[in-house]
Amino acid sequence: MDGLRDFTADLSGMSPASGYQGQPAARPDTEARPILAGRFRRIRGLSGQLAARLSAEDQMVQSGPETSPTKWHLGHTTWFLERHVLERFIPGYTAFDDRFSYIFNAMVEPAETCHPAAQRGLLSRPTAEEVARYRDHVNAAVLRLVADTPSLGWPAVARRLELALQHEQQHQELILADIKHAFWLNPLHPAYQSPQPTGLAAAAGQSWQEYPGGICEVGMEPGAHAFELETPRHRVHLEPFRFAGRLVTNAEYQEFMEDGGYGNASLWHPDGWSLAQREGWKAPLYWFKRGGIWHTFTLSGPKLMDGEEPACHVSWYEADAFARWAGKRLPTEAEWEHAVQGQRRTGNLLDYGKLHPVPGSCSGNPGPWQAYGDAWEWTASALAPYPRYRPGDLAIGEYAHVPAAGRMVLKGGSALTPGELVRASFRHHLAPHARWQMTGIRLADDV
Amino acid sequence: MDGLRDFTADLSGMSPASGYQGQPAARPDTEARPILAGRFRRIRGLSGQLAARLSAEDQMVQSGPETSPTKWHLGHTTWFLERHVLERFIPGYTAFDDRFSYIFNAMVEPAETCHPAAQRGLLSRPTAEEVARYRDHVNAAVLRLVADTPSLGWPAVARRLELALQHEQQHQELILADIKHAFWLNPLHPAYQSPQPTGLAAAAGQSWQEYPGGICEVGMEPGAHAFELETPRHRVHLEPFRFAGRLVTNAEYQEFMEDGGYGNASLWHPDGWSLAQREGWKAPLYWFKRGGIWHTFTLSGPKLMDGEEPACHVSWYEADAFARWAGKRLPTEAEWEHAVQGQRRTGNLLDYGKLHPVPGSCSGNPGPWQAYGDAWEWTASALAPYPRYRPGDLAIGEYAHVPAAGRMVLKGGSALTPGELVRASFRHHLAPHARWQMTGIRLADDV
Amino acid sequence: MDGLRDFTADLSGMSPASGYQGQPAARPDTEARPILAGRFRRIRGLSGQLAARLSAEDQMVQSGPETSPTKWHLGHTTWFLERHVLERFIPGYTAFDDRFSYIFNAMVEPAETCHPAAQRGLLSRPTAEEVARYRDHVNAAVLRLVADTPSLGWPAVARRLELALQHEQQHQELILADIKHAFWLNPLHPAYQSPQPTGLAAAAGQSWQEYPGGICEVGMEPGAHAFELETPRHRVHLEPFRFAGRLVTNAEYQEFMEDGGYGNASLWHPDGWSLAQREGWKAPLYWFKRGGIWHTFTLSGPKLMDGEEPACHVSWYEADAFARWAGKRLPTEAEWEHAVQGQRRTGNLLDYGKLHPVPGSCSGNPGPWQAYGDAWEWTASALAPYPRYRPGDLAIGEYAHVPAAGRMVLKGGSALTPGELVRASFRHHLAPHARWQMTGIRLADDV
Amino acid sequence: MDGLRDFTADLSGMSPASGYQGQPAARPDTEARPILAGRFRRIRGLSGQLAARLSAEDQMVQSGPETSPTKWHLGHTTWFLERHVLERFIPGYTAFDDRFSYIFNAMVEPAETCHPAAQRGLLSRPTAEEVARYRDHVNAAVLRLVADTPSLGWPAVARRLELALQHEQQHQELILADIKHAFWLNPLHPAYQSPQPTGLAAAAGQSWQEYPGGICEVGMEPGAHAFELETPRHRVHLEPFRFAGRLVTNAEYQEFMEDGGYGNASLWHPDGWSLAQREGWKAPLYWFKRGGIWHTFTLSGPKLMDGEEPACHVSWYEADAFARWAGKRLPTEAEWEHAVQGQRRTGNLLDYGKLHPVPGSCSGNPGPWQAYGDAWEWTASALAPYPRYRPGDLAIGEYAHVPAAGRMVLKGGSALTPGELVRASFRHHLAPHARWQMTGIRLADDV
Repeated sequence: MDGLRDFTADLSGMSPASGYQGQPAARPDTEARPILAGRFRRIRGLSGQLAARLSAEDQMVQSGPETSPTKWHLGHTTWFLERHVLERFIPGYTAFDDRFSYIFNAMVEPAETCHPAAQRGLLSRPTAEEVARYRDHVNAAVLRLVADTPSLGWPAVARRLELALQHEQQHQELILADIKHAFWLNPLHPAYQSPQPTGLAAAAGQSWQEYPGGICEVGMEPGAHAFELETPRHRVHLEPFRFAGRLVTNAEYQEFMEDGGYGNASLWHPDGWSLAQREGWKAPLYWFKRGGIWHTFTLSGPKLMDGEEPACHVSWYEADAFARWAGKRLPTEAEWEHAVQGQRRTGNLLDYGKLHPVPGSCSGNPGPWQAYGDAWEWTASALAPYPRYRPGDLAIGEYAHVPAAGRMVLKGGSALTPGELVRASFRHHLAPHARWQMTGIRLADDV
Repeated sequence: MDGLRDFTADLSGMSPASGYQGQPAARPDTEARPILAGRFRRIRGLSGQLAARLSAEDQMVQSGPETSPTKWHLGHTTWFLERHVLERFIPGYTAFDDRFSYIFNAMVEPAETCHPAAQRGLLSRPTAEEVARYRDHVNAAVLRLVADTPSLGWPAVARRLELALQHEQQHQELILADIKHAFWLNPLHPAYQSPQPTGLAAAAGQSWQEYPGGICEVGMEPGAHAFELETPRHRVHLEPFRFAGRLVTNAEYQEFMEDGGYGNASLWHPDGWSLAQREGWKAPLYWFKRGGIWHTFTLSGPKLMDGEEPACHVSWYEADAFARWAGKRLPTEAEWEHAVQGQRRTGNLLDYGKLHPVPGSCSGNPGPWQAYGDAWEWTASALAPYPRYRPGDLAIGEYAHVPAAGRMVLKGGSALTPGELVRASFRHHLAPHARWQMTGIRLADDV
Repeated sequence: MDGLRDFTADLSGMSPASGYQGQPAARPDTEARPILAGRFRRIRGLSGQLAARLSAEDQMVQSGPETSPTKWHLGHTTWFLERHVLERFIPGYTAFDDRFSYIFNAMVEPAETCHPAAQRGLLSRPTAEEVARYRDHVNAAVLRLVADTPSLGWPAVARRLELALQHEQQHQELILADIKHAFWLNPLHPAYQSPQPTGLAAAAGQSWQEYPGGICEVGMEPGAHAFELETPRHRVHLEPFRFAGRLVTNAEYQEFMEDGGYGNASLWHPDGWSLAQREGWKAPLYWFKRGGIWHTFTLSGPKLMDGEEPACHVSWYEADAFARWAGKRLPTEAEWEHAVQGQRRTGNLLDYGKLHPVPGSCSGNPGPWQAYGDAWEWTASALAPYPRYRPGDLAIGEYAHVPAAGRMVLKGGSALTPGELVRASFRHHLAPHARWQMTGIRLADDV
Repeated sequence: MDGLRDFTADLSGMSPASGYQGQPAARPDTEARPILAGRFRRIRGLSGQLAARLSAEDQMVQSGPETSPTKWHLGHTTWFLERHVLERFIPGYTAFDDRFSYIFNAMVEPAETCHPAAQRGLLSRPTAEEVARYRDHVNAAVLRLVADTPSLGWPAVARRLELALQHEQQHQELILADIKHAFWLNPLHPAYQSPQPTGLAAAAGQSWQEYPGGICEVGMEPGAHAFELETPRHRVHLEPFRFAGRLVTNAEYQEFMEDGGYGNASLWHPDGWSLAQREGWKAPLYWFKRGGIWHTFTLSGPKLMDGEEPACHVSWYEADAFARWAGKRLPTEAEWEHAVQGQRRTGNLLDYGKLHPVPGSCSGNPGPWQAYGDAWEWTASALAPYPRYRPGDLAIGEYAHVPAAGRMVLKGGSALTPGELVRASFRHHLAPHARWQMTGIRLADDV
């Protein structure tokens, strides 16, 4: 039995039948402790499983300043639990190793308190084994905390724990996106998992759905757990708009390329144009030609480019240029959220095990399709705090600030995103030049 | 008579009494030709006057990759007229010097068609005198075009010409901001003009005005000329908010500094914090200590810091950190525009000749004060195209694209901004790290 | 028994008693095959032993663009054998893995033919195990070649093989210097080996030996194997000079520091002064204060600074400034070589197992002491080809060119240098800013 | 009468007939005061004449971090006189402007005491006129000092003054080399002077002269004034060598290019190869193709490439690669000096007014030709202090240190070098990548 099967087997508890999809999660502070403990075990366990396919050497690679080694992700999420849950709720808690705060803190300043982010690839020590021991130690302490917290204190613990679990899930996606980048830069182009059967599915024809707009509500849905920057739920005014029924495909993107898209400055944002010239962009990241034919690099290794798959690993600049070429535009964040609210939260997500977009995935939703999974969808919106935003008790660590300047919002989730994490209000955000995450294109238009 | 008086004398045609303030400008395509010709002469003449205080050597300095020499601004605005007005409307128009397109084009790509922006300081040739001849030549050609265009063609010419004039006015502000930066880097710290009398005015006490929000309209006002990115006028939904009655003063900003504002990471956007550490920011740009006392560098040379003046030359990061420290926030662009719509467009603008914020300027408006002039006001909004934005016939040259990614919107205008240019819908935009323009802080808050 | 004892045990075959020291090595082409095969086994084995103290993770670390991972050194030296011995002498030899040439070639241009040097730390694949298999495979093939080569062909094979072995020995030193640097950058500051007993030895008092100069001979000694750049032996004219009896000690270097040496521009070469300011140098690399007391980082971990030890990890700029402060100068390469010729080639070298300079080591030579071992000695000479230099049949790969521009010559060898490699004519060379190798200071003076 | 004639007229006092060539200059401390005063007036005047062909704008351009504006050269040489002559010998001397030390000091550290070298192009103030006044003021003070110094003090004054004059002459060459580079980067490619008549001269055939070597003397000749780094005169041992009779011509260099010289890594020093790839070198600096034909940019503007002229504006890397391609090598400094000692110091130098190498210039010397003038000649020698070098009383300012690391020695002088400055012992030195000075190739070979 190959690695993949084991993996999907392990993920079966998160299959559509298990009930988390399509429903707003119950607020963690009313969740029974055994359920949260169970989720804790499952989520923490999955991180270990994702890493287990990699050797200690693989887990140590850092491909660049924006990515991190697997081992660091494993240590950082553990440190997050130690700092923000154990130290917060266990008086006199003693850190597993007091040097780990320096190593696994994600902050970059002041320089004395944290290891330089660009030097994470130098951490041959602590070893993968030591990090595993660290994880075990912290896991046990957290489970004891869950069991021992008096009822009165439980809601606060549960809220923090939920935050830490969603934080861990975000890093699960990063583990996969980062190792893909590292393997791409390795001249041997290794594969993370065995090739995935893709069948002969075709992409559906593109369709367009109209929305009348007007006053709509967006942001954290009542009763759900969300990151601070998804709050508060608030009203926006939308003009009537059209929303594409599915993501742009590789074949469609290739038309743009063949029509000279990468050589036509008038289609591009000037910053993107300069960047693309400087770096010689001619196609999305991970596309390459072999014998004159386009291939793409995936977590299952190199493969022939499949025109029916949703295009991915494009920057915001490429998504924006494509939309202009197509005579359309990217949706705003509010449009996206309005169009997708109420859909079942299923799709080609991490739980599905493909780790790559698949042609024609429709997730059983009436449409628009592929809202969740396959590829993150760039929006026309720059990230900024929502109106009347007031950071609350979960504005801690990396979540203390809305990283406003220069980040564009992405919505939905990709084939690397844990299913439990996706929701209409989730605000992923990246610099417009970023291409190493699984980012694709949904079109929109005015009515 | 000192330079200032001469200067204000020359600007008297644009004094409040001359009637352009407070009224939406008539649409250029209905303006009579003599009036537009008059404005053309006056605006083009002012650029020359601004440069006339500088030697040919001064006009050649480029202080860094974001700024340009005076001489280049003079040539570039002239080339803009040649390319977008004369070549467009005069069949067979022959360029004054066909090498000037390479030199004075502001685009940066493709590299073959334009001089590298960072090398504008190398242009000892064409000389200031040659650029002056270039300006005269193009001025004469434009005035002939204005006179000779058949009625049918006039509206299109007038619209383009108005665009070129507002473009020239934007560069007038840059001439002043850029030479200030260059003089600051010069160890002799020369002054652009003589010291300005400031009287003993005090800043008004801070006051707060409440706005109920709801559905509001923002963007280009009907009948006005505006840049493409101010279009289309559209509805937004605003929550109730409070808007500060005046800008933050130097004394208030100094409190932030003395309270350790520059050393408290929790107040700062992480990107800004990293940058501030790296560059050793301890105060706004142009602040320096002499004999233990804060001074500031102005276009009238170094002077004692005046606590009553509006603070300026802060980056978005500093403005944002200050607002957080003050327990407030920056206004969104829509809030700013809603609060200011209907005000008379007057204030401490370029026309006033001070070239620096003044204490307690109130411009006769009932409030909020200092909406126009003194200092550009950073907003919480990242620049993005407006809903249903469709670039029209004025989306040319630098105005072809909305430079979305990573630019924050600023509103109002500064003591360097030509009065005719300001309007509620004007969307100035800068990278969040920029400090060399005259940028200050207006606070807002939720109700 | 700790790792160290094992190690010194393994090195016992290279102890002074084993006879290689003090004698010019027999020319390889007259060496009997079994002896060369024995050396091959021993030297190749030692590289494996040096790596064996490191985990696969440790072997993968690259601390910067000038250093390489242990695993890469192991692969590169193997590829060197494959390319320059096996492919050269075995018709139709098939590479172990034809992708390894791309990975393990040390050249940096043209970009298509070799992996970027700065990205060697990304090579989680091939794994340490695969590299070990690669080594075994190539070792076996080389030993077969040694056995099977007809007599007529033997001298050419032996010469190439000797080059490859000395190449391997150079990389043994780099393995140690590079991992030291990597461990220094690791916040856990791990140790490569257990602490070394240092006794209570004191440095000898400084003494000076005079040399009359005149016409002297330097360069490769007849009958020895040497790198091309040590050729040809040739005459130079030397003025009378004095040569210090031992290396500068930490205590002496500390006097320089306490006398403001790092703050006195007049002592420094201007390039070095700029660099030292920019990087904030206040002491040699690996020196740090703990509790107000100087410590130094060694391959046995951090330890108290010992004033009696030879100072090391200084750049040429620091060595030059120290010499100027001391009223002396660095020796020229020719002076060094003339003074040391004829000494027994023993000292605190890699074979001794200390991996760090020791106080008062004198190596049984009458003097000058510490000529071989402890620390490489910076000279005043920039590397350049010798008069009448003509590259011969060993000018291959990295040895094809004399890397003239900007490299300063170092002589002698350090506590990390294999004893078999040192000789009076050996020309080590580094950029003047380099500090990560074990580099120290010998003074000289005019008579 | 064109600019050139005026210029050569002004230089007539330095014509061969005037007696300075071919003879060691009398030691300045025995020179009569009127003669030194006359030289002072003439040399200081020539700097002004060189600048007078440039507008104030031209004098302000700085084309890069290695070059300086004309105006800065004029100010710096004046400050050198103030600092090292006037302040040294006139008690209580008051600086013309005490801010000029910060501006015109050539040192780069510590940062507080001098203007950043890369920002010299920002100095629109002091104006060219102010710098001219500064020059006049200092000139007058120096001439008074010359007149008033008591006999006892005269030798010390004369020695310093001579140093300052040779310093000024070095900067005269830099004024020309730097403005050529600036004009090259200007898209209008302006000319510094009118085109020079070149006649139809052809290069002589290449010839080779043999030297037997042995013990030779090099370095400062007795009775001459020289920079510290030319001292002391000392003995070297040379092997027999051959020395080319003339410089390499453009036609010969073009053969190298056509034979793929720029694409053949095996000819190149690895550092040079990397650099050439990175910067896309395909020909010497200032060569460009127009209509498929090679042109070159000169101080008289662009012109057709003349194959008979000595090649120039090549880096050391190119000179070295060419020599290897030609099966020859560059001479060492000692070989060059030995071969040229005793020649009359004449040639196509600055005094000749061509400002560019000329075909077949032979300067009346029996040979080797072109030793002085036309182009600086790269040697195989890295700059280092001479044996027994002890800095003396002229080791001040920029001459305080021998800038050893990474500089290669050049000999002879170029068409931009003042004739009085050249001598066999002169040690010009540049980084091996430098191409903006007038640098060419002389070949040598072993016998």
